[in-house]
Amino acid sequence: MTDDGFLPGPRCQVAGATTGPLEGLSFAVKDLIDVAGYPTLGGTPDWATGRPVPQHHAWIVDRLLQSGASIVGKTVTDEVSLGILGENVHDGTPLNPKAPDRVPGGSSSGSASAVAAGLCDFALGTDSGGSVRVPSSFCGLFGIRPTLGRIDFTGITVQSPSSDTVGWFARDGTLFARIGASVFDAPMPAALPTRLLIATDAFGFADAAVQEALRPMVDRLAVLVGEPEPVLLAPQGLSVWQQAQRLLQSSESWATFAPWLDRANPRLAWSVARALAMGSLITDTERNRSALMREEARARMAYLLPPGTILCLPTTPFPAPLRGQAVSALAYPRDRISCLTSHGGLTGVPQVNLPGAHVDGAPVGLSIVAGRGCDMDLLAVARRWTL
Amino acid sequence: MTDDGFLPGPRCQVAGATTGPLEGLSFAVKDLIDVAGYPTLGGTPDWATGRPVPQHHAWIVDRLLQSGASIVGKTVTDEVSLGILGENVHDGTPLNPKAPDRVPGGSSSGSASAVAAGLCDFALGTDSGGSVRVPSSFCGLFGIRPTLGRIDFTGITVQSPSSDTVGWFARDGTLFARIGASVFDAPMPAALPTRLLIATDAFGFADAAVQEALRPMVDRLAVLVGEPEPVLLAPQGLSVWQQAQRLLQSSESWATFAPWLDRANPRLAWSVARALAMGSLITDTERNRSALMREEARARMAYLLPPGTILCLPTTPFPAPLRGQAVSALAYPRDRISCLTSHGGLTGVPQVNLPGAHVDGAPVGLSIVAGRGCDMDLLAVARRWTL
Repeated sequence: MTDDGFLPGPRCQVAGATTGPLEGLSFAVKDLIDVAGYPTLGGTPDWATGRPVPQHHAWIVDRLLQSGASIVGKTVTDEVSLGILGENVHDGTPLNPKAPDRVPGGSSSGSASAVAAGLCDFALGTDSGGSVRVPSSFCGLFGIRPTLGRIDFTGITVQSPSSDTVGWFARDGTLFARIGASVFDAPMPAALPTRLLIATDAFGFADAAVQEALRPMVDRLAVLVGEPEPVLLAPQGLSVWQQAQRLLQSSESWATFAPWLDRANPRLAWSVARALAMGSLITDTERNRSALMREEARARMAYLLPPGTILCLPTTPFPAPLRGQAVSALAYPRDRISCLTSHGGLTGVPQVNLPGAHVDGAPVGLSIVAGRGCDMDLLAVARRWTL
Repeated sequence: MTDDGFLPGPRCQVAGATTGPLEGLSFAVKDLIDVAGYPTLGGTPDWATGRPVPQHHAWIVDRLLQSGASIVGKTVTDEVSLGILGENVHDGTPLNPKAPDRVPGGSSSGSASAVAAGLCDFALGTDSGGSVRVPSSFCGLFGIRPTLGRIDFTGITVQSPSSDTVGWFARDGTLFARIGASVFDAPMPAALPTRLLIATDAFGFADAAVQEALRPMVDRLAVLVGEPEPVLLAPQGLSVWQQAQRLLQSSESWATFAPWLDRANPRLAWSVARALAMGSLITDTERNRSALMREEARARMAYLLPPGTILCLPTTPFPAPLRGQAVSALAYPRDRISCLTSHGGLTGVPQVNLPGAHVDGAPVGLSIVAGRGCDMDLLAVARRWTL
């Protein structure tokens, strides 16, 4: 069991290049991302069985090491990335340092926990359905889900190929943005975006206390970018988008993991196994209907977000739920969270969580979203972010 | 991990009464049956969590101890009794001493393994869908599924109340029958049954090699009881009965375990979790249709099996499958096995497996079935059983 976010046992340690733009920084790696010489355990006792120990770093790990950052550990993840809350029955639930009685969020739970506790400068996570964005919100961190497909996914455990991304967490906005400049090999934009949209449907969907808590953050964004223009993020319905994303993602993750389940008959938490079993029941008709909705969602995002425009919404509809609740008690909250995150997997746009608000003493974040490929525009805002 | 059928760690040891009909005998107890002072672990790491250590023996354990037998250990079981093959991903798969490359059968896997290896005189198991009968067949043992409801189930982990029974395994027919006389507090019948039915549908359903291997056993039964009269066990179809029993049992076991799954989010093998998830989807319509079929099956058994009549059938359609196969490779064999066992849960009649046949060097058994309450008639045959 662990509570600092790192895997138990001796820490994975890999020194980065002696010079480079990230020289001297320390980072942690979610244990679904390959580090050469260390098994990728994937948050379950049976994922690594029969798989060779990686001989190569994942592309992004290699990139960061070459930029001068050093690995100081691998971190706990929800089982094979299937979870949004960060409770792992095998490895234990990492501490949420900002709200110790609450979950850290997942599936990149340990990475968020370690960064929030100040145990490393930044950490890598993956995000298919919200696995960087949600723990960023719950642990009060900067966190990015990059544009789908922009970062080479080699050496990272696949879950749902049409939704999978790899991103990172940091406490400091300037550092957070510098990582992006290295990873994307892109300059920091000379100017900030000039148009701000506010997703009224997404704000209306969040708890009233969250709407209230995020207000100063929106005001700050208005100063940096421009007066917010109200728009509907999902004219078809956030819950309709959520359902489409859930079907596509569940169906793909079933296809991904079915051969392993069949061969290894692995030990899984009931909640994870049940979700996989339900994924196996999705029909072609449901898949096709969801794929059509995805086309509509992508068209909507392309319409809303030309270069220079960003959109803001609550990252999560509430702060982190309490730890240790029954499976059934978390089913509806989990679905509510994904109503605010499903546009990511569905449309592939980049999203950054900005920290700064609290409800009942627990963090909750404001997200900014840009058009595909405009990740640096979001990072430029993060770099200027102070409240 | 274990391979002798007993739980790892210090053995559960409870001395029986110093005198009694079972004086000096040793027995093992499936770890779904309470022994006072020992946690009932149920074949998973998360079953006992939050449950008090039993303060009382299960009724049958108490009865056996008072009869003079002593407990020498608790034995491995499929997770919360949900399995028919005996492969447990948490505790390991007990050895089948008669066919080491094959599964022992389950869910009373460890009890069958320990008795077959000669590590105790007899052992207790439970049987809802075949969990004593199948390991008896696979390990070459006498095994009984008693009449539903005849033995007090107090202190035994419930799976599917309308199917659950508790029985036992032994190597020796005389000893096997003596246990029954003590448990049922009944005299050994003065005469054997006088009429033998042979279930032609069940024989036809077994592998040709099994039919052939069982022939000398049927001949021996004919000498003891009478010339076999061919009958259909299940005029509606063995597979129709199997489907009805599967729906009823899955639906009941879901109802049994759902609160635990919800509260504890336990670690389960994928195969077990998936079966539970599918059980949650059974509709009232399906349940009602299955309950009607159960009435028909009960009427059929009452018609076929008046006192003095017994019926024989292959216990399993084949000997034990090889260990370590993929989940999908075992799905169809598992269903085929239950086509020959589902009459037990469906109708509540008692059944005894007689050992003696082999196919490819591995044991396979012949079963005898009597009308409800006629358990002692079957034990009387077992007592006379030699080949």
